[in-house]
Amino acid sequence: MKKPIYVQIAQTIRDNIIHEHYPELKLPDERTLTQTFAVSRSSIKRALQLLADQGIVFKKQGSGNFINPLFLKQQTALNYNGDNVGLTTSMVTPGHEQHIEVLSLDVVLPTPEIQQNLFLTADDFVYSFQRLRSIDTTPILIEQSYIPVRLFPNLSRQLLKQSLFNYLENQENRLIKRAYLNFQAEPSTQNDQERLRLENWEPVGVITGIFLQDDGTPFEYSSMRLHYQYLNFATLVDLS
Amino acid sequence: MKKPIYVQIAQTIRDNIIHEHYPELKLPDERTLTQTFAVSRSSIKRALQLLADQGIVFKKQGSGNFINPLFLKQQTALNYNGDNVGLTTSMVTPGHEQHIEVLSLDVVLPTPEIQQNLFLTADDFVYSFQRLRSIDTTPILIEQSYIPVRLFPNLSRQLLKQSLFNYLENQENRLIKRAYLNFQAEPSTQNDQERLRLENWEPVGVITGIFLQDDGTPFEYSSMRLHYQYLNFATLVDLS
Repeated sequence: MKKPIYVQIAQTIRDNIIHEHYPELKLPDERTLTQTFAVSRSSIKRALQLLADQGIVFKKQGSGNFINPLFLKQQTALNYNGDNVGLTTSMVTPGHEQHIEVLSLDVVLPTPEIQQNLFLTADDFVYSFQRLRSIDTTPILIEQSYIPVRLFPNLSRQLLKQSLFNYLENQENRLIKRAYLNFQAEPSTQNDQERLRLENWEPVGVITGIFLQDDGTPFEYSSMRLHYQYLNFATLVDLS
Repeated sequence: MKKPIYVQIAQTIRDNIIHEHYPELKLPDERTLTQTFAVSRSSIKRALQLLADQGIVFKKQGSGNFINPLFLKQQTALNYNGDNVGLTTSMVTPGHEQHIEVLSLDVVLPTPEIQQNLFLTADDFVYSFQRLRSIDTTPILIEQSYIPVRLFPNLSRQLLKQSLFNYLENQENRLIKRAYLNFQAEPSTQNDQERLRLENWEPVGVITGIFLQDDGTPFEYSSMRLHYQYLNFATLVDLS
């Protein structure tokens, strides 16, 4: 699916911001942007509005569009923006390679908690799998996930070596579009310390998530323990 | 300002959910809700849509509205939903009292980082203050904040003993409506351990935020260090 021109422009500007093309933390004015991108003024206006809605820039009346300095500080491993990015694509930062190690894959009956999180009965089998994700050679994330067998009957150890969401999108044209995520901090366990090379006083960030199919059916429940230096979730919050 | 009826209904249902009035984790059907609230079916539909948009319920085609189990697990100290809730009102959970201790208040020139976060020049004075927030007698949060002097010239130690956002809303009719928030986890410092009664292996959750006025001007930059058991940020994320 081709994206509207203003979305493409917003993404280009976002990339420019990340690569620090605007060292003064201020965007060029609308007129300049219109010329640079060779599009209509209204496309630029919509692109800027999108960036403002995402909290990436702040519009300051009369003085232009300023880059949110907190946005720039992000060095997050997970980035739940963009096009159906699962964990995997979003972990790829330019010049870095990611690696997924499958630690386990089983089929089990769901605990009451898993039943609740995935709207299952006690008889609905689920895959239970653990993966360790690394950037280059640095392990950053231990993932424990559950997927109902009937929603993904062909799941295999082989498939788990890649991003499931990318696979679903590319091979089966299925998009996992929404997720409900919880962020917490916890002391690291001994297992965390070994897997993520943490000292015993270093914490993990814990993200639990329910990932939903288009029709609202929960597809996956996942609990992710991250090396704390790789947890950085940013969000624009409406207080009203 | 009076809220639309569907917003009021959504809030009532939300409160019912929190107080576990629906032990089966399923809402009554639309027809029943229409009768219970004695409003039109369309108001109920809008209220349910709002709850779905907020990630509080999931609509499952043909089977009804289910309560998000992750939502129920929240025991968060900060709740950035609702009407212009600042930190303070949101920390009040029924049956509990909050307490704010003002640790310091100074007026200083901004560092380059503060200048950037609040769009200031090197000459713009800022208030710098630290507060310790407790629920009942449990300290949960150390806050270090900066506010430009010209945006709040009457700030005082006395005012800092309460929620500034509530004060602004009630006394000056000013609403702080949006915030850009970052969530991270960090090992606790010795100061954290003393103030928040943490063991040295227990972490803090760190929320940094830029709070914006209506016109987009940054009003406050704040760095908040929370007892890790009180950091629980939940959000519905659109992956597409």
